[in-house]
Amino acid sequence: MSTSSKRDSLKTIGEFGLIRQLQQQWPTSSPCIVKGIGDDAAVLNARQGQQFLISTDVSIEGVHFDLAFHTPKDVGWRAGVANLSDVAAMGGTPLYVLVSIAVPVRTPPKNIRALYRGLQDACAPCNVELIGGDTSSSPSHVFLSLTIVGSVRANRALTRHGAEVGDRLYVTGTVGDANAGLRILQSHSNNLRRFSPSAAEKFLIRRHRRPTPRIQVGQLLVDRNLAHAAIDLSDGLSSDVGHVCEESQVGAEIRGEALPLSSPLRAFAKRHDLDPMELALQGGEDYELLFIAPAKHHQKVLLVSEQTKVPISCIGEIKPKTFGQQLELPGGRIQRLATMSFQHFSSR
Amino acid sequence: MSTSSKRDSLKTIGEFGLIRQLQQQWPTSSPCIVKGIGDDAAVLNARQGQQFLISTDVSIEGVHFDLAFHTPKDVGWRAGVANLSDVAAMGGTPLYVLVSIAVPVRTPPKNIRALYRGLQDACAPCNVELIGGDTSSSPSHVFLSLTIVGSVRANRALTRHGAEVGDRLYVTGTVGDANAGLRILQSHSNNLRRFSPSAAEKFLIRRHRRPTPRIQVGQLLVDRNLAHAAIDLSDGLSSDVGHVCEESQVGAEIRGEALPLSSPLRAFAKRHDLDPMELALQGGEDYELLFIAPAKHHQKVLLVSEQTKVPISCIGEIKPKTFGQQLELPGGRIQRLATMSFQHFSSR
Repeated sequence: MSTSSKRDSLKTIGEFGLIRQLQQQWPTSSPCIVKGIGDDAAVLNARQGQQFLISTDVSIEGVHFDLAFHTPKDVGWRAGVANLSDVAAMGGTPLYVLVSIAVPVRTPPKNIRALYRGLQDACAPCNVELIGGDTSSSPSHVFLSLTIVGSVRANRALTRHGAEVGDRLYVTGTVGDANAGLRILQSHSNNLRRFSPSAAEKFLIRRHRRPTPRIQVGQLLVDRNLAHAAIDLSDGLSSDVGHVCEESQVGAEIRGEALPLSSPLRAFAKRHDLDPMELALQGGEDYELLFIAPAKHHQKVLLVSEQTKVPISCIGEIKPKTFGQQLELPGGRIQRLATMSFQHFSSR
Repeated sequence: MSTSSKRDSLKTIGEFGLIRQLQQQWPTSSPCIVKGIGDDAAVLNARQGQQFLISTDVSIEGVHFDLAFHTPKDVGWRAGVANLSDVAAMGGTPLYVLVSIAVPVRTPPKNIRALYRGLQDACAPCNVELIGGDTSSSPSHVFLSLTIVGSVRANRALTRHGAEVGDRLYVTGTVGDANAGLRILQSHSNNLRRFSPSAAEKFLIRRHRRPTPRIQVGQLLVDRNLAHAAIDLSDGLSSDVGHVCEESQVGAEIRGEALPLSSPLRAFAKRHDLDPMELALQGGEDYELLFIAPAKHHQKVLLVSEQTKVPISCIGEIKPKTFGQQLELPGGRIQRLATMSFQHFSSR
């Protein structure tokens, strides 16, 4: 975030001035918020017959985003979706968010407001309200930590535990696009101003910069009691399948042919001599849902897809734990489902 | 946090290995936790007749702490208390914590475990349980963001709003010690190994490194319906009095003579030719409680002090808004209560 002008600078408005501006930008109205932002803690009423969901996710400059090719609005949007998507994966309704942010003192307040605007835009379709946070200076990079609070019908939350042998694995949307979009941005980071992406590249970049949380799909799966387990695709499909298998103590067979790959992804892979299936399996941050449902509910799952207008594809089957996690390649050959997805600190 | 050995390094154990270790170190048991750490979100049951409290606070290397004179355990403890104290200031009971942490990849896992241990030690007296978080690499500094969840009897939370003209202002413990302790550490940061502090200096350093959240005092004030408003002393007494006055639309008169100053603080101030009252008014991070109670409850407030064994001092009175915020000096002279406390981004 570039240097601020003198009038609109953090030094001039100070921490409390910034908080006031952000509070005005994002007012709250829910009757369940007894006390929102601006006290030592927010005070919340529980909702009848509901349980609370709570999750937190960090976004760090140089790790999760790069200000060379993410606008402040992108940063806010993506951080918002990473958190909203966690609630979607539990089949819940996102309600409130707390935002902690640390920025270098030279950061222009307008960029911080733009970041909040991106977050607010991502939250707007589900009326998520800002109920707290913390604001600090940072010695170097921008740090963002969001906590999302949601609710879910009591004892109906979709955890990673619960997948049963014979169940089917489903994913929403298409997978691998965000991975390809990021690769495009990274390969043009030095000449981004002169870079004129094709329509296919624009699609992939947008999928990376502005992912969509699949909240309605998660909610319908819970309302209609259709799924045994769910997770959102943040680490990468192969890794996230691994998480579900580990928590549910099962194995899984993924049919490579069934992976929903967008045509821009196929075109990108072809052009760069990459395997599109591998991009889909290893790429993270698609924020699509992976869920596990009994085979008998297949028609009802398709109805959810029809009603939400979100494509849903069956990509495989849950197997016994001893089966491990296998990938059936298009020719019929079977290989171990490698989990080469992103893991922090890892040198791979 | 110094460089890690090869066997116990983040590169070797990876993100998920670290999470497993931390999960084992801090197991959960509350029946209200339907699902704790290790899924997309935690699932919580509400408690009958209670409202939820939620708050978040960041701790950043180079801003909130300095690894030259804070051990990883200090960092965890202080971050924990900053959050616990927010719940104490609402008169609530802290229940759960979510921990987001980003560290440079060279950080030894044992230092991260020590940081969690410090946090866990601070949380132990109130049985706070770890229910989630996020772990990431950081390009440079250590970044810590905690979210605390608590509960409070419905419609009884102590906010900053509610102070009335004629009410009395009270503070727990002594004020200014943490400020002095930090100054001592800063002035010896270059020769800390050779520095041998006096007993008084040790006391002040400990007050800075290991503050105490005043949870029981807050809880008794709510149980017995004694207070109109409360805040914890994180920014500094003069600034925190200002927050309450602003939210409650009142003024305040503070009696300088009544400020509870420890004898180590007085000795420190004398030795360095500083005004101990100023240290107390401007210094932050004491994590004592400032609360406002009607004059008629004075005896009952003293009983809370007696039962909790926490000193409580009446330091002034709430005045009409037009009065502003004034400080009565020991000689009887009146001056404006300056709010020179810490504010992020401020160049003062």
